[in-house]
Amino acid sequence: MTSSYDSGLRINGQRLWQSLMDMAEIGATAGGGCNRQALTDEDKRGRDLLISWCEDAGCTVAVDEMGNIFARREGRHETLPPVITGSHLDTQPTGGKFDGVYGVLAGLEVMRTLQEQDIRTEAPLEVVVWTNEEGARFSPAMIGSGVWSGVFDRDYAWQRSDKAGITLQQALDTIGYNGDVPAKARPVKAALELHIEQGPILEQKELQIGVLTGIQGMYWFDLVIEGQPCHAGPTPMEQRCDPFMGLSSITRKLYQLAETHAPWARVTFGDIRAEPGARNTVPERLVLAVDLRHPDKSVLDAMEKAFRDIAENECGRLGLTHSIHEEWRLPPVSFDTLCINAVRKAVDQLDYPAMEMVSGAGHDAGYLAGVAPTGMIFVPCEKGLSHNEAEHATPEDLEAGCNVLLHAMLDLAQQ
Amino acid sequence: MTSSYDSGLRINGQRLWQSLMDMAEIGATAGGGCNRQALTDEDKRGRDLLISWCEDAGCTVAVDEMGNIFARREGRHETLPPVITGSHLDTQPTGGKFDGVYGVLAGLEVMRTLQEQDIRTEAPLEVVVWTNEEGARFSPAMIGSGVWSGVFDRDYAWQRSDKAGITLQQALDTIGYNGDVPAKARPVKAALELHIEQGPILEQKELQIGVLTGIQGMYWFDLVIEGQPCHAGPTPMEQRCDPFMGLSSITRKLYQLAETHAPWARVTFGDIRAEPGARNTVPERLVLAVDLRHPDKSVLDAMEKAFRDIAENECGRLGLTHSIHEEWRLPPVSFDTLCINAVRKAVDQLDYPAMEMVSGAGHDAGYLAGVAPTGMIFVPCEKGLSHNEAEHATPEDLEAGCNVLLHAMLDLAQQ
Repeated sequence: MTSSYDSGLRINGQRLWQSLMDMAEIGATAGGGCNRQALTDEDKRGRDLLISWCEDAGCTVAVDEMGNIFARREGRHETLPPVITGSHLDTQPTGGKFDGVYGVLAGLEVMRTLQEQDIRTEAPLEVVVWTNEEGARFSPAMIGSGVWSGVFDRDYAWQRSDKAGITLQQALDTIGYNGDVPAKARPVKAALELHIEQGPILEQKELQIGVLTGIQGMYWFDLVIEGQPCHAGPTPMEQRCDPFMGLSSITRKLYQLAETHAPWARVTFGDIRAEPGARNTVPERLVLAVDLRHPDKSVLDAMEKAFRDIAENECGRLGLTHSIHEEWRLPPVSFDTLCINAVRKAVDQLDYPAMEMVSGAGHDAGYLAGVAPTGMIFVPCEKGLSHNEAEHATPEDLEAGCNVLLHAMLDLAQQ
Repeated sequence: MTSSYDSGLRINGQRLWQSLMDMAEIGATAGGGCNRQALTDEDKRGRDLLISWCEDAGCTVAVDEMGNIFARREGRHETLPPVITGSHLDTQPTGGKFDGVYGVLAGLEVMRTLQEQDIRTEAPLEVVVWTNEEGARFSPAMIGSGVWSGVFDRDYAWQRSDKAGITLQQALDTIGYNGDVPAKARPVKAALELHIEQGPILEQKELQIGVLTGIQGMYWFDLVIEGQPCHAGPTPMEQRCDPFMGLSSITRKLYQLAETHAPWARVTFGDIRAEPGARNTVPERLVLAVDLRHPDKSVLDAMEKAFRDIAENECGRLGLTHSIHEEWRLPPVSFDTLCINAVRKAVDQLDYPAMEMVSGAGHDAGYLAGVAPTGMIFVPCEKGLSHNEAEHATPEDLEAGCNVLLHAMLDLAQQ
């Protein structure tokens, strides 16, 4: 067994692809995507498969109180803090085959490559699966890495419930992933997350690798607009207090706000609910999910203030009442120089076409950055489509990203 | 027993009010309204109570295949076609105490008054409860009177299902209101429906009675707007196909359309659904309930055309696709001169302040008008509020409306 650092070492791209395709069969949708939401039976099957693969690759597996999975490959010095990498296995309800799972299986592929080549690093390496990254089943998103990083209390997280009223703790129990390791950060040398871009930029620029310097900030709100329910026929239009009139003008002004702060501002309405939701009654209440993003905290804060002003002014003008419930906020994140440099160095050495960029999406790495030196690597995804059954990335790009991960991890583990 | 027509005859307003309050206890909501949706356990309890009251008032009760209830008081000539009156007992999920139930219990109060005074009319009288008028549980609305009037097939109606997948026929079976009388119109001398206005006009004009000459037409659609689901963060705003952008501009233009055809045009969006409905994904699809109303068929048809053009233009402009599903259409209705005159005559004789008007809401009377001479009577409701737990009408106005119904029915039954 050697600790030499072979710059010619490469992962097995075909094996990586096959792992991705095998995992994608769990929760496969008719539309060619995946529905493997957090802590469901499908998620359990995905976790079980991943653990069997990690054990075959010589790793020791531990599960913490949040269901986060740590597959560890010992180094020469087991007291050194590990270099960790990972992402998530859960998907959106109509998600794709790559978002999250690529980062996990690329970590596995690194382990397999080192086992095959009989290479032992100085520091230990770990592949991590973070629970409920998507936030599709339990809100907020990234709750597994969030608890581990001290952003959320464990008990708060355990009590979060899905639409059916099942708590996260109950769901962990049901699938048997309520581990006994404390869900709490321990010393880590470096944390890397490899991910598809989920945006169109690398593809449009014909680049293979994004070297991430940070993550856009994002603020999540529920906007509740309340009016006066009344019968759809007899009530004259000018006498109505109709929440849809507020919705129409508030959404329009928020899209204008995004234009004001183009090109980086993002305004998204992912969900809406009308109450009571009867066809011939003006709704009493609309509940709209509002997602605001920008990489610059001062701009993002200004966007939040504008959002609050717009809701206030439009509802006031229309005789409606409203309230804004803060669901979650993730300030912009800057990654660590140690990690950025390790990724840069691997890219240079491997000679892949690359650029530095900021992530538009939130990632577990955003929370880890608060407690460990952290970095991220992106590869292109077709047409920038993600959270979509048609999500796709090429085997060549996935292989390139995994090679960058391998060499960046080797570099960090030898330092 | 006398057949004389006593112009001094009056109903018992206190007894009518008490019946309304007793019925309102069934399905009473914390907010002071009623949730007694069609064919639920609450609806069964309301029906059972009504039938016991009708039998005490000397009526014979029959139930048809749609669960419509007919409580008959024989006249001197049982071969004469009856004069019928009625409405519905079902409510919206957050409905009030008067919408529908007032028309049924006022009919009961007429029967009680005649029994008390030992008056026998020439023609038989019937009080009718029409099943699922509201359409809140089973779509379309007014399906009981619709089948009876030949607008819908019985089997189509039986197969309609609620959000839980329970069919109307199953629901009828469950509460034991699947009668054996064919749900089919038979000869009727005249049909009257007494109802709260559900709008603000009578109250604002300080009048007690509305003599209805017809019903606004109303067209119901589901507008489906489809875009491209994508992750809320990385996708630049200008590259999105976001159904909410379509929604924002289509709803705005439809409110402008209502202004163009003011004061009678009504545009209402009672319900909306986002799919997949995840907070950090641009929705693939929005489904919006659209309700268009106007008393003039040519204007209403022009509104429908404008709606279709707006959806086409806005979705085209934004790179979205769309489809429009027709859920129901009720053309404007003109009531029968025989009935309008009987109501006018009763109002004159009783000397209540009154006006002629058109209903903005759909009513079972709208379907009955296709198979029988039909008319309607309105009384004011507070602030025009209906389909609302705060729905209210004064005992005095309710008594006045019931006296008009009594004398109009007596007049029609003696002719």
